[in-house]
Amino acid sequence: METIKEDSFILVYRDRRKKWLVRPVDTPKLHTHLGILDCAALVGQTFGIAANTTMNDTVYVLKPTLEDIVMKFARRTQVIYPKDLAMIVMRCGIHSGSRVFEAGTGSGAATATFAYMVAPEGRVYSYDVNPTFQDVARKNLEKFGLMGSITLRGRDAKEGIEETDLDAALIDMGDPWELVRNVKGALAPSGMMAAICPTMNQAERLTERMKEEGFVTIETIEILMRNLEARVGMTRPSQFMVAHTCYVTFGRKTV
Amino acid sequence: METIKEDSFILVYRDRRKKWLVRPVDTPKLHTHLGILDCAALVGQTFGIAANTTMNDTVYVLKPTLEDIVMKFARRTQVIYPKDLAMIVMRCGIHSGSRVFEAGTGSGAATATFAYMVAPEGRVYSYDVNPTFQDVARKNLEKFGLMGSITLRGRDAKEGIEETDLDAALIDMGDPWELVRNVKGALAPSGMMAAICPTMNQAERLTERMKEEGFVTIETIEILMRNLEARVGMTRPSQFMVAHTCYVTFGRKTV
Amino acid sequence: METIKEDSFILVYRDRRKKWLVRPVDTPKLHTHLGILDCAALVGQTFGIAANTTMNDTVYVLKPTLEDIVMKFARRTQVIYPKDLAMIVMRCGIHSGSRVFEAGTGSGAATATFAYMVAPEGRVYSYDVNPTFQDVARKNLEKFGLMGSITLRGRDAKEGIEETDLDAALIDMGDPWELVRNVKGALAPSGMMAAICPTMNQAERLTERMKEEGFVTIETIEILMRNLEARVGMTRPSQFMVAHTCYVTFGRKTV
Amino acid sequence: METIKEDSFILVYRDRRKKWLVRPVDTPKLHTHLGILDCAALVGQTFGIAANTTMNDTVYVLKPTLEDIVMKFARRTQVIYPKDLAMIVMRCGIHSGSRVFEAGTGSGAATATFAYMVAPEGRVYSYDVNPTFQDVARKNLEKFGLMGSITLRGRDAKEGIEETDLDAALIDMGDPWELVRNVKGALAPSGMMAAICPTMNQAERLTERMKEEGFVTIETIEILMRNLEARVGMTRPSQFMVAHTCYVTFGRKTV
Repeated sequence: METIKEDSFILVYRDRRKKWLVRPVDTPKLHTHLGILDCAALVGQTFGIAANTTMNDTVYVLKPTLEDIVMKFARRTQVIYPKDLAMIVMRCGIHSGSRVFEAGTGSGAATATFAYMVAPEGRVYSYDVNPTFQDVARKNLEKFGLMGSITLRGRDAKEGIEETDLDAALIDMGDPWELVRNVKGALAPSGMMAAICPTMNQAERLTERMKEEGFVTIETIEILMRNLEARVGMTRPSQFMVAHTCYVTFGRKTV
Repeated sequence: METIKEDSFILVYRDRRKKWLVRPVDTPKLHTHLGILDCAALVGQTFGIAANTTMNDTVYVLKPTLEDIVMKFARRTQVIYPKDLAMIVMRCGIHSGSRVFEAGTGSGAATATFAYMVAPEGRVYSYDVNPTFQDVARKNLEKFGLMGSITLRGRDAKEGIEETDLDAALIDMGDPWELVRNVKGALAPSGMMAAICPTMNQAERLTERMKEEGFVTIETIEILMRNLEARVGMTRPSQFMVAHTCYVTFGRKTV
Repeated sequence: METIKEDSFILVYRDRRKKWLVRPVDTPKLHTHLGILDCAALVGQTFGIAANTTMNDTVYVLKPTLEDIVMKFARRTQVIYPKDLAMIVMRCGIHSGSRVFEAGTGSGAATATFAYMVAPEGRVYSYDVNPTFQDVARKNLEKFGLMGSITLRGRDAKEGIEETDLDAALIDMGDPWELVRNVKGALAPSGMMAAICPTMNQAERLTERMKEEGFVTIETIEILMRNLEARVGMTRPSQFMVAHTCYVTFGRKTV
Repeated sequence: METIKEDSFILVYRDRRKKWLVRPVDTPKLHTHLGILDCAALVGQTFGIAANTTMNDTVYVLKPTLEDIVMKFARRTQVIYPKDLAMIVMRCGIHSGSRVFEAGTGSGAATATFAYMVAPEGRVYSYDVNPTFQDVARKNLEKFGLMGSITLRGRDAKEGIEETDLDAALIDMGDPWELVRNVKGALAPSGMMAAICPTMNQAERLTERMKEEGFVTIETIEILMRNLEARVGMTRPSQFMVAHTCYVTFGRKTV
């Protein structure tokens, strides 16, 4: 059974809307409108326990999942969600030992997901044209202990990709078609590329470019996730949902 | 660059509807209505190449992805699809080293996915009340080289789960609520369980049972995947889609 | 061309989120954060014109559509939306001359829609167990000039429906199955009934009851509406949507 | 109670997949794989009755609804479905007395719907560049008794629309933007236009054109309809659905 350490991230969970992702070392006392939680006192305890705030409200102290972490990385302006990342991991077959390219790093949500999946043998090579922006991602990735599987490159992948024979590649840029040729060069034969396309115009233009470069099994998908409120005798879908984040275009390199 | 071996699975790809997943050793000559492909002659070549059939039709010889394999395992009667497995892997955080429980084995599609993700350090423990049925899955899992990370147990998990301190658990049975207590015992604190619920009634009943057993972050979701036909000047969603496979109910164990 | 009268409803439209449905007689000056609009001065003008507020902001003065009216009736707590009403009208074939039953009246949104469609020859008979609540709906229906085609009955339809040989019936009550027998008595042979079911449990129970009473072509549907943000080179679905209002169960009476 | 006449259309209903829309005058004996139904013998009976085939199979004799008729008009190649027509009727407020423009007539499915809704006082003006094609629609519309409310014009609406001050307009053509100016001329101020856009590119281009012509409340929607299989203890959404028919773009004329 895993015990909480000073620098462990813990998910303090009250309900679907009230949850906090913190570390005892940074946040020895977690102040909430439901009272204060003594996080420092949790060190040495096991994950999964219930704890009380000073206002006697019960919360649960959970080990954060990959999805908790990704949602922490995600910003409002960002279109990539766990539902999309899940399908990218699945379709690209990203797992232990995979060598994965990514451009751009952005908030690091995809970088974190891939790093989590490829450890310990694999590696994520993440390019971003903006090194300052990348530093924010780096700090977060370090805190979550993921940097061991990541190489961040603070430069434009359009000017060249250093790696070759990669298993998978993700393009998350406004003009993904501009990177298709370089990605083709970096991928192993039969390797899968994926690209985030918030608009249908991007998917359209990218698809053309991928066909020109000889990619096959080209497909664009959208993933919708809807919650079901399961309650005895009153079960119904949730009233609201995220209706669109992005399309994802996939294809495999041929030689 | 990876070369094709005698016992490598190869995905012979013509278009979205015409593709074959075979091994040169089993299928030295692949007979299709587009002519015969000499698979034996592909041995020693690299994945990703184009090849011609005897009728001079071009096909691509791809390295099968996890999803190609899962779709091969899947039967028509089965409700679990890559889109659902992807979200289960993501939300449960199944990756290298994870120890995962599953009941039942079924066709082995989920077993294959988890084995692929947990290798080389982790392990999948898959129970099925029907050992004969499980043998079919075993044969497939062996062919794809996944059995090294799998322990198949040909017995009813309702009568007890041998393992403890597991990272994640998937229940894919008609009466998932009957297994909640045993799964709770087998999971590590804060561990995530997921259950396949084709009907709303299953999700409803399961949710109640999980609440009684102290699970938290309980949530039921459905994942919809729709294709976008991206073609210059004529982009539109696909006309048909799979509208429902199953709901998936998730929750974490507390102590 | 239709001119605006003192008691005409006008839709003052700025953009998708800023619009007001008012009458010059009630609101001679419309105060908004974009300035004041002189509605009284619009009397005698034609619908469709642009007008300026005192802060020189341009708004459009539109003739309200049925949907504008229905959205005005609708409350936050209510599950029936234009998308659902549209399908009920279509499938029940509600048009000029139709005689339609409804229980309960609720906010009057469905009553308004049906009255608009059946005029001038048809009639809507709307029952509500709560006559006080019905008075609110009556006031709104009167203001929109729809009461000429409506008979409101302030009593429980479970105790009996006065009308017979009706073309269509809508049940919008928590326990729709309790009204199936009475609705069957009131419908003409082959007549269509529809029922609003926010939960799947209601649809399940209602369906059983309808089968017992000999209804055929029984079907439960859900309607999802998603907006597309169509902008040159940046077209994408809307980011958020209403994910669930209600299921609608339909069936036809046999004799 | 309405009785069946020689030239009444009757819907012979066995189950969701086995149903026939016929007239005793055309089909005195209906031959099915479930036996022969004596349709001639049904004349004089009431709608809604059960009847037996020669193989003693029970069917129901229903009065066809608007939707039954529309589905009969619809061809496989056609993108307009009842779900879409329903929303067009609702949003355009098409009802008794409405004067509605349409281009093109196509199979007549929309024409039939609008005629059904505007009768007896209103009128549908339906243009089609191909008069031969329009004759097929005319024959169907006549059989269903709808031509009394319809004027078919066998010419290209791009060359001019005769009518003015119309309440609503539907464009169902490959290049809807080419008709925006003419439709604007034909609509009453504040009148609503709708256009069928199978692709996103059409919606994109049309939207631009409508903005240029001063239309407001411009919105593009897509309607998804999914069935719920409501069965005691086993309720679940249908496994398959139509995932896309068309987008519909709406907007109101200003002056």
